[in-house]
Amino acid sequence: MARLVIALGGNALQRAGDEGRWEEAVRRMRATVGPLAELVRGGHQLVVTHGNGPQVGALLRQNELGEGEVPPQPLFVLGAASEGEIGLLIQQELEAGLARRGIRGTVVTVVSRMEVSPSDPGFQNPTKPIGRFYPASEALRLRRRTGWTLREDPAHRGWRRVVASPIPRRWLEGEVVRSWLAARPRTPWIPVVAGGGGVPVVRHRGNRYRGNRYRGIDAVIDKDRSAALIARTVGATALVIVTDVPAVAIGFGGPAPRWLGALTDRELAGHARRGEFAEGTMGPKVRAVLDFLRAGRGRAIITDIPSLGAALRGRAGTRVRPARRLPKR
Amino acid sequence: MARLVIALGGNALQRAGDEGRWEEAVRRMRATVGPLAELVRGGHQLVVTHGNGPQVGALLRQNELGEGEVPPQPLFVLGAASEGEIGLLIQQELEAGLARRGIRGTVVTVVSRMEVSPSDPGFQNPTKPIGRFYPASEALRLRRRTGWTLREDPAHRGWRRVVASPIPRRWLEGEVVRSWLAARPRTPWIPVVAGGGGVPVVRHRGNRYRGNRYRGIDAVIDKDRSAALIARTVGATALVIVTDVPAVAIGFGGPAPRWLGALTDRELAGHARRGEFAEGTMGPKVRAVLDFLRAGRGRAIITDIPSLGAALRGRAGTRVRPARRLPKR
Repeated sequence: MARLVIALGGNALQRAGDEGRWEEAVRRMRATVGPLAELVRGGHQLVVTHGNGPQVGALLRQNELGEGEVPPQPLFVLGAASEGEIGLLIQQELEAGLARRGIRGTVVTVVSRMEVSPSDPGFQNPTKPIGRFYPASEALRLRRRTGWTLREDPAHRGWRRVVASPIPRRWLEGEVVRSWLAARPRTPWIPVVAGGGGVPVVRHRGNRYRGNRYRGIDAVIDKDRSAALIARTVGATALVIVTDVPAVAIGFGGPAPRWLGALTDRELAGHARRGEFAEGTMGPKVRAVLDFLRAGRGRAIITDIPSLGAALRGRAGTRVRPARRLPKR
Repeated sequence: MARLVIALGGNALQRAGDEGRWEEAVRRMRATVGPLAELVRGGHQLVVTHGNGPQVGALLRQNELGEGEVPPQPLFVLGAASEGEIGLLIQQELEAGLARRGIRGTVVTVVSRMEVSPSDPGFQNPTKPIGRFYPASEALRLRRRTGWTLREDPAHRGWRRVVASPIPRRWLEGEVVRSWLAARPRTPWIPVVAGGGGVPVVRHRGNRYRGNRYRGIDAVIDKDRSAALIARTVGATALVIVTDVPAVAIGFGGPAPRWLGALTDRELAGHARRGEFAEGTMGPKVRAVLDFLRAGRGRAIITDIPSLGAALRGRAGTRVRPARRLPKR
């Protein structure tokens, strides 16, 4: 039985033109769960993780619009809220997809925290824009009042808050979830973990706290990077990154893109070094794949929902295996 | 080792006069976790559940204030969001409380759903007010547009949405959590479950879904009632309801209240029949205790945080044991 970590992209939940209504998200998720349930039917053990971009954006905006009456919550708290909301959605719809195939199973959402380093370079130079655009005067006021970092948008649409996108170092709930996966309860269960990359926390050492303690920090962890850490933590056979294209391409957007099928991590790293993968789109996914394969075990797949089953049978998607390392002379 | 289900009341998180800021909630929780961590040090296994009244109220209000730009989410989705938010708070602070005592442990939030019956009498006659007051004209418009039930406030402050408060029948994640508690991972872990009573769901049988499937429904489940179901599900030694008074009193609010110490469920039920416990305050807690003890095993305690340790040693709080049932002749 293979243990698969499935990282669902934003498209599984919301698409361009969607307003963000619950019923829309239910519809999107219904189109996603079929191929996932087929994997369970095929005997695979799944661990699901997912993005939260549009959902946390909506929560941020509601916090802003309600500010006059309701104290806004920190970004990391909104992350935990989105883990609850989206987790519930995946639980309901994936269980329904299993039930349609005659499979009893419980999908369980575990709110997840990711330890990041306070000295992560991301905190010195935050680059991840979140929330809405502000005029320059309001941006200045906000900076003074909140201590936020705000940057002018390159396309001159205004100023925007930017936060760090630090690398996740440790999944705090990971050891417990791994032990549960090993225990195998009577009815199969599928964990949904670290939505939106998980809640970023830093370890706090201070006089008031003997021992260790974590506090939340406003940042956005790349969910594919977290997926790679989750895959290492649970000893996954494969990391599967589900996105909106059937495979990775080189020369993407050009006249003759070449879709990548089976290749080694060394080959994929070569393409990355040649600048084939854009920062906002395929770059982080490729980095997550290389990060997972560096640990030396498991494979990785990048594909979309319609190609998912075929990709696992080696007939679609981009499938990355570790290059055989020659022993040093 | 005793297995305790601890139900934290709203006071553990937010008090009268608090605005609902995260830092306030952190401060409140810090005052709560000490006695809980002491129980862990004493060898007890904890399962924590909690209310969400003020938090879900704030989310509702933000949804309302942002409605012009961001589609509001259904009430049951806000419930899941509050499980994430408050769960994170309890995780962070309870782990810190354990660390201060030299105990390593992971606190894990499991988003929880409670199955309720669509024919629960609560749905025919909703009584639980939520959200803000509306003038009569707006209440009529809302009723037409949303299908909500709205009732005029007895104190004439306006109209308010009312939802059902159905009885929880099954905790969907319960079997899985119970199996985890039995497995005993290497580091101790403490589950936080069913915040705000859990997300109410009803079983849906339809042609589109072979097998079973659950859908969320807008309702508010009494968190103490859910705590009783959780205690039965995990086979708790004791159900501990933490509130803002050190014990249950009869003649409460009168000239000579009598605080109840040790008593049987039969005696407690007698006081309840005589109308000693008000509906909005002690009534639901007493009902939850009687509900748990009816299952025939375990004990129950109602107390506050400062008295918690003494109550477990039999020296404070209201401590309810099952009456010995005489065999029928």
